Amino acid sequence: MKYLRIGQPGYETPVALHEGKYYDLSGPIGDIDGDFLARGGVRTTAGFPEIDIAGERIAPPIAKPNAIVCIGMNYAAHCAESGAEPPAEPVVFYKHPNTIVGPHDDVQIPRGSTRTDWEVELGVVFAKPASYLESEEAALDVIAGFVVANDLSEREFQIERSGGQFSKGKACPTFTPLGPWLVTPDEIDDVQGLRLWSKVNGEPRQDSTSKDMIFSVAQIIHHMSQFMAFDAGDLLLTGTPEGVALSGRFPYLKAGDTVEVGIEGLGATKNPTVQA
Amino acid sequence: MKYLRIGQPGYETPVALHEGKYYDLSGPIGDIDGDFLARGGVRTTAGFPEIDIAGERIAPPIAKPNAIVCIGMNYAAHCAESGAEPPAEPVVFYKHPNTIVGPHDDVQIPRGSTRTDWEVELGVVFAKPASYLESEEAALDVIAGFVVANDLSEREFQIERSGGQFSKGKACPTFTPLGPWLVTPDEIDDVQGLRLWSKVNGEPRQDSTSKDMIFSVAQIIHHMSQFMAFDAGDLLLTGTPEGVALSGRFPYLKAGDTVEVGIEGLGATKNPTVQA
Repeated sequence: MKYLRIGQPGYETPVALHEGKYYDLSGPIGDIDGDFLARGGVRTTAGFPEIDIAGERIAPPIAKPNAIVCIGMNYAAHCAESGAEPPAEPVVFYKHPNTIVGPHDDVQIPRGSTRTDWEVELGVVFAKPASYLESEEAALDVIAGFVVANDLSEREFQIERSGGQFSKGKACPTFTPLGPWLVTPDEIDDVQGLRLWSKVNGEPRQDSTSKDMIFSVAQIIHHMSQFMAFDAGDLLLTGTPEGVALSGRFPYLKAGDTVEVGIEGLGATKNPTVQA
Repeated sequence: MKYLRIGQPGYETPVALHEGKYYDLSGPIGDIDGDFLARGGVRTTAGFPEIDIAGERIAPPIAKPNAIVCIGMNYAAHCAESGAEPPAEPVVFYKHPNTIVGPHDDVQIPRGSTRTDWEVELGVVFAKPASYLESEEAALDVIAGFVVANDLSEREFQIERSGGQFSKGKACPTFTPLGPWLVTPDEIDDVQGLRLWSKVNGEPRQDSTSKDMIFSVAQIIHHMSQFMAFDAGDLLLTGTPEGVALSGRFPYLKAGDTVEVGIEGLGATKNPTVQA
């Protein structure tokens, strides 16, 4: 099953995409959020009316989570291009949940920014609370689905103006485009074998695979659950592969660009950039 | 006006404390959250019934915020005891909002922890969204009130196991005791002249004043609003003064201890610690 949300901010309609058809889930289920996912989502689209989504804004596929938990430096080649050693354990930072926008919404280049960068990331959404999980197998059981995320990053804010704490360059408004879909795990054969890519103005940037993660999705969730409690509906971003502007190989984003990030089986975001 | 919340988790009743009397705010106002604060709170307790809160659990004084935004290293003497230079600009990290507990609730020593530490902090709650504020004066206009917070920190998780990103040792379950009250700005003469203190098992630990902040409350909000957007209801923690266990002068917390933090005019938290 794929879930999505359509409509203007604050007025989104939850939708299921199943076998090429869209179904209106509005009514008793409420929204695509922690409560809905903790109840197991919908098992079948029987009984829900088909709808036409043509011309509608595609919203973020999940309602605002309680937290966006991000893993940094999780691909060795990205560590190298960033001038960092691969970490011994998962490195974590947070983004403000109000940074989430839809897959085609405007991304704002922050005022004073000269180094706004893209990062394609595999996002994981939680189906249930998770704390002190006993195994990596148990970690797989708390996943509601997967989503494409762009973890936009202002490198001067993140590195030079932060005292070393990444969040300062990560939580600018509109810095987490998400979508178009939340895809349930049964639709993904091997979450550690997915191609991830990004493009700017149609030109290729990142092109890697989730096989290259230093810590797998199951390892991250199991490990992090020893240090924090995830809520149902939370969003976990699992790090970005090489090919960002920080490497020095590409120019940073400027207003008027178009930035795309995508993952095999999960779709892609394509956001125009504007000056804040 | 002072706001508080009483009752068991998930079933809290909003209450106002005014001139020594408690008033039941339940009904149309909903909860002490961003929506309520953005509407300006209540101007008068007239028309609200008095209540007796004896024997009730004191809950966190605000509903779960969209984010807890924390400023690190904001007192020079704490920088020194932590082995760090005072920062040139505010340093920011986040805590998961699900870390908030009431002022007398159990605090959990995380599994595997040997270095759980306390941090008294002046908390600021937002009355309205704040982005790209034009001045420090404008920053004061977005404040709904002030609250006492204990920014509990596991130092091994925060420093040795984090790749340098503080959040790993800051977001363990129950790590943000808050309360007892949200105090509106009109009740505070000088937010930069408040005594802050902490105690463990009744013995003094921190004892400083908010005058010693490197960046004032207004400077922090104005500055950070250039890098992120605050939501109404968000909680900002403004850093801790010297006198934590990380200094080497005191033992870390262990299960069975009692940890207290307080601020002049804002009350105090007093939490027993238990093993997670």
